Formats: sequence, structure tokens, C-alpha cells
Amino acid sequence: MKQSQLLSKTRKEAPKDEASKNAELLIRAGFIHKEMAGVYSFLPLGLRVLNRVNDIIREEMNAIGGQEILLTTLQDRELWEKTGRWSDEVVDNWFKTKLKSGTELGLGFTHEEPLTALMKNHVRSFRDLPLYPYQIQTKFRNEMRAKSGIMRGREFLMKDLYSFSRDEKEHSLFYEKAKLAYMSIFDKVGIGEMTYITSASGGTFSKYSDEFQTITDAGEDTVYVCEGCKIAINGEVLEGKKECHNCRLSDLKERKAVEVGNIFNLGIRFSEALNLTYLDEEGKEKFVVMGSYGLGPTRLIGTIAETLSDKDGLVWPKRVAPFDVHLVEISDENNEVRKVSERVYSMLKKRGVEVLFDDRELRAGEKFKDSDLIGIPLRLIVSKKTFDGGLFEVKERASGKISMIKEDDLCGFARDYLK
Amino acid sequence: MKQSQLLSKTRKEAPKDEASKNAELLIRAGFIHKEMAGVYSFLPLGLRVLNRVNDIIREEMNAIGGQEILLTTLQDRELWEKTGRWSDEVVDNWFKTKLKSGTELGLGFTHEEPLTALMKNHVRSFRDLPLYPYQIQTKFRNEMRAKSGIMRGREFLMKDLYSFSRDEKEHSLFYEKAKLAYMSIFDKVGIGEMTYITSASGGTFSKYSDEFQTITDAGEDTVYVCEGCKIAINGEVLEGKKECHNCRLSDLKERKAVEVGNIFNLGIRFSEALNLTYLDEEGKEKFVVMGSYGLGPTRLIGTIAETLSDKDGLVWPKRVAPFDVHLVEISDENNEVRKVSERVYSMLKKRGVEVLFDDRELRAGEKFKDSDLIGIPLRLIVSKKTFDGGLFEVKERASGKISMIKEDDLCGFARDYLK
Repeated sequence: MKQSQLLSKTRKEAPKDEASKNAELLIRAGFIHKEMAGVYSFLPLGLRVLNRVNDIIREEMNAIGGQEILLTTLQDRELWEKTGRWSDEVVDNWFKTKLKSGTELGLGFTHEEPLTALMKNHVRSFRDLPLYPYQIQTKFRNEMRAKSGIMRGREFLMKDLYSFSRDEKEHSLFYEKAKLAYMSIFDKVGIGEMTYITSASGGTFSKYSDEFQTITDAGEDTVYVCEGCKIAINGEVLEGKKECHNCRLSDLKERKAVEVGNIFNLGIRFSEALNLTYLDEEGKEKFVVMGSYGLGPTRLIGTIAETLSDKDGLVWPKRVAPFDVHLVEISDENNEVRKVSERVYSMLKKRGVEVLFDDRELRAGEKFKDSDLIGIPLRLIVSKKTFDGGLFEVKERASGKISMIKEDDLCGFARDYLK
Repeated sequence: MKQSQLLSKTRKEAPKDEASKNAELLIRAGFIHKEMAGVYSFLPLGLRVLNRVNDIIREEMNAIGGQEILLTTLQDRELWEKTGRWSDEVVDNWFKTKLKSGTELGLGFTHEEPLTALMKNHVRSFRDLPLYPYQIQTKFRNEMRAKSGIMRGREFLMKDLYSFSRDEKEHSLFYEKAKLAYMSIFDKVGIGEMTYITSASGGTFSKYSDEFQTITDAGEDTVYVCEGCKIAINGEVLEGKKECHNCRLSDLKERKAVEVGNIFNLGIRFSEALNLTYLDEEGKEKFVVMGSYGLGPTRLIGTIAETLSDKDGLVWPKRVAPFDVHLVEISDENNEVRKVSERVYSMLKKRGVEVLFDDRELRAGEKFKDSDLIGIPLRLIVSKKTFDGGLFEVKERASGKISMIKEDDLCGFARDYLK
């Protein structure tokens, strides 16, 4: 895409009320727009990143048997009363609204209730199980404060998968598979190395749960990390002495971290309350055993912005970058450079490399500054100087490494790098 | 995908309170689930159709310069007060909610206001225009009644594009392009022949607007159609005698129809209220000229279900069907058929044909009934009988036409048909 036609512009300053580094960078670079605290719109660059993150999530969820669905925002009071989660005293972050008739509705902050109710139409016998529906959908949470940018929103995107299994054994098998799928997602989006499977509280559902915590000073949680075992313990469940659950080492490191995913064993908490049962091989009626598996695509993007940026701007991992190559043209007076830029741009596009082509009439310094801020993995400079020598300068955003590449080799170079 | 693993089951009956044919069929066939009146969830089959419809819309919007974005549901009261659209007396279908602080928020029923405000950060000079942002996003409308299934929801998906032009001339050029893109969308999703560009009221924005009306008895509008010119007039703007705007013929036919899209000239209604201006070539400050272009993907699906179904069930047009081929296996005792089914299933999948494989242990009659109800374009029967003869029976869902095809020719036959 040509940058002169791109909807968004970079900005020198983020809105004054923006307290988080992730939103500040993403707003300045033209990826998102702040509607109000905790509520952000996605501009074309941001939506491209979001779609790529969602595609990685879908790939991993489908690989473990997930089936994508799409539930609704509007929630039926009666249904949530059955599980005891309608009251604002039990759930303190509901947004609620009303039909013309006066009937109260909620805006979904999670979806165990409607999905469990829905499954009653589709689950009858043991043959129908297990099932793993998931969705990537907007959640609404009426947070008292929302100061962490897109790492904690009042309106945000969430991938939530729910497992419906015949028994605890079948549940546990999937639960472990889901753990691996989650770690694979974090690897692919570029934060695998900083992300730890973390023992945490099970909330109202069970004694423990598993969280996925990414180390960052911007995180709201405190975790104790065992570097050797690559696992951590959430401070909230630390009882007495700090000790790794695996190697029993007590030399755990205290770190600030953000919870990028969590998985819960729900047991029969919801199937019992809403009467979701199946007939087993012997014709006996049993409650379905459930689990829930949350992961926030927008929070992931916030975490990437927070942890992988540098003083000059964003640094996108290859698989989630809005474009592969930022073609920056340093124009000359007689438009020779333009001809070459257009040729290289067409060639790369034709071969499936995604290119943002900075064809704007601006000084080179301004273009480089914008390019650093936007953070596309490879920057390809087309200027009279480089062109006269028959070589193009390609700079890696993450490492700053510069290579001089022949025109015929540009595509191969980009592809090798992006692999 | 194997049907034994599919989340949804077909049903004999839709919920008793479901009054519309489209939702009744879609629920019975396992495409959607009714959460409450006017609020429906999408199951895997339904989501597949929705994604294909959205892909067609994106294709056409991108082709005329559209840039996809994603705005938010939660709406800022102050912003909407500036355009005079916050009051429930002016807009009678707001859903409203509150922050913990007591601040009132709205749930977006349309997005002119937030987008116009957002564009102020990205539009400065004539060089930045025109721009055509669009989104495919959930809208919330507090309808008094919601009896038309997914043809009129309280929560529904909408594609809304907004044009930002320098002047009326630039606006008009795009407006005409958008009309053609819309007709192309309706052609591709299979309702082009029944859909008419219709002169309608401009509501509060202008004297006239253009609607796209699909003829169906389930429609809530009355239009007067000129068959020759392929255009129509909405009853609401009919003044005095019925006469085609084009050929002046007065023999117009009265039809019930559903509005599947509409496009408006907004002029400077919003740019003036929210002060969205640009500097022209001479450095003079001018208001941006706007247009809005709405189209409901979920309403489209409802319209397809309503108009293209028959007594046995849904009949999906090729480009939006959840699968290309429904492979129905009529199993034998010694599992010979299963081997052939698996082989054909793998072969078709490998060559990019999307197959739903009915591998369930059910009687042939039940499987055929389900297959008719689900409405996939081609049904491929694998049974001992057809296999013994070396030929497979392929039935077209729309026409009922049956062809006997050799195994090696199955893929070619499917591809030719689906073209």
C-alpha cells in the first residue's frame, strides 16, 4: 500500500490523558485511536496487526479441535441469575442496559452462561462429546480505572474457548493440549521467551488455575519466576516460602508481569447450574465437565508494544507486523528514483511480500523517523545514491543491521528474513 | 470437516417464539442460535457463511479504495451531543449504559460521529483526501419489536463505509462507484437479480438517498419496480402518480422488499458540527464533504435464507455456502464404503474443495433430509450401489439435477460447477 493514501498519520504526541506506553506508541504511530479511557478504535495499521494475531490464534485453536462460533454481546438477565452471576455485588464490572420494555440486559464480560445454555440444543449423548467451541469477540468490563492502554480495556477483544468433556480425564488431556497451543501462540507472536506458565488462583471456580504471564514492568501482577523450569507462581497464591513447584528451588525471581492468557478447570460449576447433561455409554445422565481458555488479542498487541519497542518506536515481530517491508523512497528531482521504487514495489507485491511504500513528499529524516516509529521488520531504501551503485540498503528494524542487496536478490532476502 | 464432529445438530422445530422464516430455517439447520428476540449467535456453519459474505464485501470495498478499520461500541455522550443525536427524543433506538462513575455511554447504532472526530487527527490538507474508511462491526439498535429474524436485529453486523471528499464533485464520483460495488456484492452473494436500486427518502440528511431493495414477501418496505430499467421507487417518496424516474413508464409493479443496503449523501452535516476541515490548494479552510454507505452482512444472510430456500430447506448460492460439497456416506456392513468415502474426502480437500462429510451412523433418509435442510450446493453420495457401478451420484441442491460422475472426474465436476 502507498503511504500517501494511508488513512493514518503519525503524531508527535499522544493524547495528554494517555498514561500507558503501549497506547502512547500505538496512537503516535497511527495504529489505534483513543475513544475514551480503556476504549480504543483500530486504524488500518492496527487492524492488520490484529488480524494477523487472530489468524495465529485461529490456527492453533483449530489444530486442537476448536470450532469457531460468534456469541452475542447482549445478555439475558434470567440466564445469569441461574448461575448467580447477575448481581452487581457478585460481579462488579457489568455494563448493563435496558430494552424499551424496561427489561434489563447485560453486556457480556465473559460467555460461560450463554454458551452452556446453547450447548443444550446440541449435546445429548456421549457421542456428541468432546466439543471445543471458541470465539474471538468483544468483551465489555466496567473497570473502575483503565490506565493500561490496550492491555486492560473496558471494551476489548477476547478469544475464549470452552471445552465440553465427558469426564475429568478427557478434560485434563485437552487442558494440557491447550497449554501447549497457548505457548505456541506466544512463540509465534514473538513474546514466547518472556512468557511463563504461572500457577495462580482458580478464582471462584477451583483452587488453582494456569496463567500465562509475560514479564514487563507495565504489568499489574507480581510473579515469582524459576528461570530453569520456565515456570512461575503468581504472588497471590504464594503460601509461605517461595519455591518452584517443579524443581523445588527457592531462588525465585520477583518480576512484574502481565497476564496474557489464562485457563480454568470449571468442573461442573456451569453445567450443573444450567443443567447441561449427556447420556453416557450405559444410558446414565451425567453433567458435562467444562473448562475455559481465555486469551486477549488486543492485550497481546499491547504487550508486544510494551515489551518489544525501543526509544525510536515500535518493533513488530515478523509474524504480526502490519507489513513485511517498509519501502522508503528518497526522491530526486527528475523522478528517476520514483521509477525504480515503483518497479521494486510491484515486484515485491507480485511475489507476495507485503509492502508499505512511503511515496510521500517529505524529507528523508522525517521518513526515517516515521519508519522507526511504525516498526515494520525490514526497511528498504530506494535513493539515487544506492541506486547508482546498483545496490539497495536494507535495514532490520529489530537489530539495526544493514545489508546491501542487489535488486534481483531483494525478494529472496526478504523471504529468508521473514521465514 | 466431518459432520460427526460438527458442534451443531439439525432440529425438527425452531423455538416457538420465532416468527420469521429466515431464522426458523437457520436455527433448524444449525447455523444460528436465538439468544433473545433480535439477538442471534452464529454457530460454525453460520459463521462460515458470514465470513464468506464479509470477504466478498471486503473485496468490493477494497477495490474502490476502502481501508478497513474497527471502531468501538461504547460511545461518548459529549460527542453525540455536538451533533444533536444523543437525546432519546431524536434517536429512538439507543441502548445506553453507565460507567462506574455514573457517566452515561451509548452503544453505537451507527458511527458517523466517532469517525468524523477521529478523522480530525488525520486530515489536514487537500493532499490527505479523499479517504474511504470502512468497518464490519456490530451495531446495537433498541428496536421496539424484533420479529424479522436476522433481517432486523437488536444486535447485528453492519458494514459501514464513510467517504471523506474535497467537494461535491469528488463525492458524486465515488457515490456512483459505490453503487456499482454494491450491485456487484449482491450479484456475488446470489441475490443480484432480485435487487433494485431504489430511490428513497434521505431521512434527516438530504432529500433523497439510494437504497438497495431485494424483493421478498418477508420485506417490511413497499417498492414500485420498473422491470425494464431495473430500478425502483420506495413507497415513502412516491409523490402523486407512479412513474419510473428513468423511462417515465407508469406501469410500475408494487412489491414487498427488504432494504439490504443504503447510501447517503451526508454533505457537511457532520463535518460542520464536529469541525472536520481541510486546507484546499489555495490555503482556504473548507468542510469535508461526507457520504455513508451501509450494508448488513447478517441481513444479507437472512435475505438469502428467506428468498432462496425451498420447502426442504436452505439453498446456498455457491459463493457464500458454508461448504462446496456435502459428501453423504450410505454405510455398508463391512466398511467398504467408509474406505472410499475417506479417499474421496481427502482427495477433494487436498484440491481445495471444501467438504462437509456426513460420516454419522444414521439412516440414509435422515441424512438426505439434513442435507436438504443445510443446503450445500452439491451433494455427493457414496454408497455400495454407486460404488459398485464405478460412478458417484452428484445432486445439485438448487436445481435437483443429478449427474453420475467417475471418481477421477469428481474434482473437475465440482470446480466447474462452483465457478
